[in-house]
Amino acid sequence: MRKKKIENNGSKLKIIPLGGLEQIGLNITAFEYEDSIIVVDCGLSFPDDDMLGIDLVIPDVTYLKENIDRVKGFVITHGHEDHIGALPYVLKEVNVPLYATKLTMGIIENKLTEHNLMKTTKRKVVKFGQSINLGQFRVEFIKTNHSIVDAAALAIYSPAGTVFHTGDFKVDYTPVYGDSIDLQRIAEIGKKGVLALMCDSTNAERPGFTASERTVGRTFDNIFSEHKNTRIIIATFASNVDRVQQIINSANKFDRKVVVEGRSMVSIIDTAQKLHRISVPDNTLIDIEQLKNYPDEKTVIITTGSQGESMAALSRMASNTHKKISIKPGDTVIFSSHPIPGNEKAVTKVINELIMKGADVIFQDVHVSGHACQEEIKLIYTLVRPKYAIPVHGEYKHLMAQARLAQDLGIDKKNVFILASGDVLELNEEGAKKEGKVTTGSILVDGLGVGDVGNVVLRDRQHLAEDGILIVAMSLDGVGNQLVAGPDIVSRGFVYVKESDELIAEAKEIIEAAVLDLLDRGISDWGKIKSTVKDKLSDFVWKKTKRRPMILPIIMDV
Amino acid sequence: MRKKKIENNGSKLKIIPLGGLEQIGLNITAFEYEDSIIVVDCGLSFPDDDMLGIDLVIPDVTYLKENIDRVKGFVITHGHEDHIGALPYVLKEVNVPLYATKLTMGIIENKLTEHNLMKTTKRKVVKFGQSINLGQFRVEFIKTNHSIVDAAALAIYSPAGTVFHTGDFKVDYTPVYGDSIDLQRIAEIGKKGVLALMCDSTNAERPGFTASERTVGRTFDNIFSEHKNTRIIIATFASNVDRVQQIINSANKFDRKVVVEGRSMVSIIDTAQKLHRISVPDNTLIDIEQLKNYPDEKTVIITTGSQGESMAALSRMASNTHKKISIKPGDTVIFSSHPIPGNEKAVTKVINELIMKGADVIFQDVHVSGHACQEEIKLIYTLVRPKYAIPVHGEYKHLMAQARLAQDLGIDKKNVFILASGDVLELNEEGAKKEGKVTTGSILVDGLGVGDVGNVVLRDRQHLAEDGILIVAMSLDGVGNQLVAGPDIVSRGFVYVKESDELIAEAKEIIEAAVLDLLDRGISDWGKIKSTVKDKLSDFVWKKTKRRPMILPIIMDV
Repeated sequence: MRKKKIENNGSKLKIIPLGGLEQIGLNITAFEYEDSIIVVDCGLSFPDDDMLGIDLVIPDVTYLKENIDRVKGFVITHGHEDHIGALPYVLKEVNVPLYATKLTMGIIENKLTEHNLMKTTKRKVVKFGQSINLGQFRVEFIKTNHSIVDAAALAIYSPAGTVFHTGDFKVDYTPVYGDSIDLQRIAEIGKKGVLALMCDSTNAERPGFTASERTVGRTFDNIFSEHKNTRIIIATFASNVDRVQQIINSANKFDRKVVVEGRSMVSIIDTAQKLHRISVPDNTLIDIEQLKNYPDEKTVIITTGSQGESMAALSRMASNTHKKISIKPGDTVIFSSHPIPGNEKAVTKVINELIMKGADVIFQDVHVSGHACQEEIKLIYTLVRPKYAIPVHGEYKHLMAQARLAQDLGIDKKNVFILASGDVLELNEEGAKKEGKVTTGSILVDGLGVGDVGNVVLRDRQHLAEDGILIVAMSLDGVGNQLVAGPDIVSRGFVYVKESDELIAEAKEIIEAAVLDLLDRGISDWGKIKSTVKDKLSDFVWKKTKRRPMILPIIMDV
Repeated sequence: MRKKKIENNGSKLKIIPLGGLEQIGLNITAFEYEDSIIVVDCGLSFPDDDMLGIDLVIPDVTYLKENIDRVKGFVITHGHEDHIGALPYVLKEVNVPLYATKLTMGIIENKLTEHNLMKTTKRKVVKFGQSINLGQFRVEFIKTNHSIVDAAALAIYSPAGTVFHTGDFKVDYTPVYGDSIDLQRIAEIGKKGVLALMCDSTNAERPGFTASERTVGRTFDNIFSEHKNTRIIIATFASNVDRVQQIINSANKFDRKVVVEGRSMVSIIDTAQKLHRISVPDNTLIDIEQLKNYPDEKTVIITTGSQGESMAALSRMASNTHKKISIKPGDTVIFSSHPIPGNEKAVTKVINELIMKGADVIFQDVHVSGHACQEEIKLIYTLVRPKYAIPVHGEYKHLMAQARLAQDLGIDKKNVFILASGDVLELNEEGAKKEGKVTTGSILVDGLGVGDVGNVVLRDRQHLAEDGILIVAMSLDGVGNQLVAGPDIVSRGFVYVKESDELIAEAKEIIEAAVLDLLDRGISDWGKIKSTVKDKLSDFVWKKTKRRPMILPIIMDV
């Protein structure tokens, strides 16, 4: 391991979240020291309920583009969407090398292939314990445990001091694949002195320890032994390779064949197999087409859809729209997951559909979290003993819960920082404070459009969604100021036409009278005519229906 | 208590849910025996996420309208929206007398007053233990406990046998107001023989007993004693009079003045005071305007908004849009509630806003459920010992959980019935089976419109919400088949006009060429022109943007 000599010349380290709090999921943080910038993670998030029609949300990386000459690379902690998902979009504008562990890079490469970016993107797979030099920074990858294999914490060494970034983690003393979190190395780094700790806050409100992933394997064994005569269908997160490993282990133990279903899950399990992150006994995995060759009680289907996503495989099985698999009475269906906040209703809907079809649905206690609870967070603080605490990853309330823990552990309140997107935290051994802001924000992706849907369009969509639209079309003779055709009214999303025939007829009369009145008075300014139509029609419709559809007058000059 | 002699002539009792499973919240069930129909409850529900722009959902009571001569009245179990909310709409079409306990009727009367229905609606307040005769039915009101005062179970006596309907209930041995659930009377009715039990399933998945409402009072006392130096703001359900009573008790004990804020809460507490369902010590309640006359640590604000509703008082306080109260650093804010499924994200949003403003937010363990858990359900079954079990109130999975409990308690599987909306269950001592269906459904209320928004309109709103609309307007000379004006393209909710200028220009060229081509070939049929415009534009836009906006061609004849 080549170690670059790092000298402190009194400059400060800057830590700048370019996403995060305002839009959970956009995990992307710039670390800056003089002429060097490195970026940890590059996540995407899924749209809020009010972002109608939006597919994805990615971070605004204006700051990186403006400082592209100084950006040395992306250092990625693990392969979840909220840490890697925006890479294909951001790399098109900020084309710098990527550094990640093996499975993480494998998952990223699947994305790069899809976006045709493999040739243009420099990549380096990093091993645990290995360091990489990036300008004035050195970054060491440290083994942790999480709900995806190959998750890393990062020790970020700069001339101003060391930052320890946990990534998303838990402490699993008995992990399914690979080693336990490298507590020895973390202690060693802590012993040498750490300026700041950036620690996962997701479960900072929960007391105690998160249970080992391995406990879920025992639960699977119990369920399999109690359901020997039915087909078993298990929904879980596509990227939870260890969970799939344990299902395969139980299946093997109980002599069942395994089908993996759902595009994202097939892709990740395929990658994990190639990279030897999952071990599948021979003749265990079968193709979905082969299912019919085995009796139900000899099969297990592992599927996507544990969050009730309407297009995922499980939802389609439940609603009989899956081409290959339908739920049958007697099927045992296991949700090996917790609903992510916001998905509760969708999950319940799928569970109800499954039960109506006669399935036996198990959805409690077949999951453990991938994030550290309070005792684990305290352990990390106690090993690292940082001067400054910067809670990361979670909603505001989670960050605040960790901030309280940090204070309980003796860190001075003034040394705990909650950073919002764009905040610039300057720090070294002498002190730390927020200094200014850089441009950040959320960019909405809709189909092929990146950033072409903004607030105006979203407000219009919201308006259209609420009460629909009334279009008023008319033709004017530009020379003689005559109403040549119309006004015609067309509505969509407002009321049934049948129900509203009378309403629309009355509305036409009112508009026609108003327009003729304007023309009679020699007023032919289109702006004036349009605003008059809008006002008259809006008042009339509100009085009659207490609704406010969008009103769009269209005038044609003939 | 006058008791009508009830004789069985061999006819069957029919139980017909007119809402329920498909749209949770529409609690309304018809009981029919020969020439008599009575209806238990008449609830509304709130729109699902895909019911864009809808305000409320009410049941389709076609069946009652068609049989209006036989309908004897509405018997109401308690005053929650999902049991009384549709009354103002339904009474306009099914004007029959209402029967309810005191507070329940008080809350209903507030609604009737708003809808100007007081004069035309016959009403009778019923006491616990009292029976009412309705055609061939006799209905006895029995005291239960629930998260609203004056909740009743019903013993419905018919010539074919007795149905015991729990309403929504829990077993609270130490209730805040009034007596404990009348287990003695329930046992007595059971001893005489009950044909069918219709029991609340909401918590049928939860083992154990629901804690007494009184335990929350002790929690309030603890919180008040630990937060003696700050203002206390408590959000809870507007209708939970006992909860408000306990907050007032704690406030009084700790010498604080109480403000009640939020329209629905003010209304219900006002009604509860008038009907002596809450007891407020003199000089405890103050007007919101008086708040400024007291130091923060001498005040408590009880407010609506515990579900994160964006227009409720607490949300407005959190976002600084409340006219009278803003959150200050140091405020103690208590959520005395659990998020109803689907509201989790909204609640978290408000909690985050509150914490960002410096409030200390307490949201765990300051609430108990109003519904019976498994041990309470078992107790009721054991006291009632019904021949048939008809689990009610809850999602399908909850009904199934109770069905399993019923079987554990020895009820034959074939005697347990899960009823969907419109199912007709015919039963007497000889047997029970589902026989046919009656018309039921959900009617959507949008503004003043009741039922004028249906699937077509909702699909249009969904389409508009997803990708917006492109309107193509053109004028044709009907005589000469000439394109006189246009095509013009106007978009809303699609993309920023600036971003799409080029796209729209190109689209116009394509459409113009297509229309001219049709006209050249002598094709002037508007249907053909419109469908050509739709196809061409849709293909073009999909290719360029991967979006499918609604496309609306408008042709004017000049």
